[in-house]
Amino acid sequence: MIRYPLALQQLIASLKKLPGVGTKTAERFAFHLLTWPAAELAQFSSHVAHLKEAITHCPHCQCLMDKGACPFCSDERRDASQLCIIASPKDAYAIEETGSFKGLYHVLGALLSPITGKTLQHLQLERLKKRLDTHLVKEIIIALDSTLEGDTTSLYLKECLTEWGASVSRLAFGLPLGSSLEFVDGGTLARAFAGRRAF
Amino acid sequence: MIRYPLALQQLIASLKKLPGVGTKTAERFAFHLLTWPAAELAQFSSHVAHLKEAITHCPHCQCLMDKGACPFCSDERRDASQLCIIASPKDAYAIEETGSFKGLYHVLGALLSPITGKTLQHLQLERLKKRLDTHLVKEIIIALDSTLEGDTTSLYLKECLTEWGASVSRLAFGLPLGSSLEFVDGGTLARAFAGRRAF
Repeated sequence: MIRYPLALQQLIASLKKLPGVGTKTAERFAFHLLTWPAAELAQFSSHVAHLKEAITHCPHCQCLMDKGACPFCSDERRDASQLCIIASPKDAYAIEETGSFKGLYHVLGALLSPITGKTLQHLQLERLKKRLDTHLVKEIIIALDSTLEGDTTSLYLKECLTEWGASVSRLAFGLPLGSSLEFVDGGTLARAFAGRRAF
Repeated sequence: MIRYPLALQQLIASLKKLPGVGTKTAERFAFHLLTWPAAELAQFSSHVAHLKEAITHCPHCQCLMDKGACPFCSDERRDASQLCIIASPKDAYAIEETGSFKGLYHVLGALLSPITGKTLQHLQLERLKKRLDTHLVKEIIIALDSTLEGDTTSLYLKECLTEWGASVSRLAFGLPLGSSLEFVDGGTLARAFAGRRAF
């Protein structure tokens, strides 16, 4: 059987490593790339090639940095007494978009997950402990996913942080805005009931 | 508002040019690329960078070639008396996979579509005419999409080719294999009726 040219096969193999991209989508992307002007291809290729050099992680909070300083830690207007614990640097941008948090972030980098081999070491809790010891943090907000891994990690963090004497809260669970009771799953509805507030 | 580092913004902008990729997916891809080992990133980047050099189009049929010869035109076991007209080089591989065609291909490169500005010039019919004049082609099979653009182009091609004295056929229309009458659309069912064959 006649197969794709080698260069195309290699490109498809690379594209298939992207999340949610299978053979068909990778082929579609590859054939689309074939139609791009050479200049755009060169640009795309250089963006990929220089990604790791151009973007570093802040040594304090592990958020993404341009070559300069961390946009969060270096901003003196932010409230250093509030610390929001997130799983990945991407989450910081989602929270920033809401405009409802003006404190600092702390990226865990992983959630506890025995299946994928993510254990306590991956949480790098010494880094968090050191930060609490050297900074005046009054409130810690745990903003992890509401999944099995997120819940497990949150519970473990709560125990540690309470032991270290910190005041800990976690994001509220309940009905998403604009949702209809009919379509909300039972677990969410139960959490919304348990978390009801005076109106 | 704090935005992504510049290098990430540029990468996202490039990824958004891929078909079916919006902002959210491009962001997901970009953050996934951040977690790739440097070697894989370099490989991906070089595959993209060298795509245009590594892959050329056959001057005869416009199919994709590795640096050497066209896998179709240079294969003497293939039947040069049958010519299959396709819209894009990708279609040749789909037809090859069926194993039911052993002739040569001819890539149009475009379908007639006034909306996207694809006119007669884009079909490069002189190239097809020249090929028919110099080669002994007994049968031409039109294998274009069953869309408005594909139908229009097929009809136009049929007129031209008949005028040039070629014998023309088009892929059959009817029920897809494994389909249930209940779920087949009216247009397909009507074509299947019109094209019924003695059983």
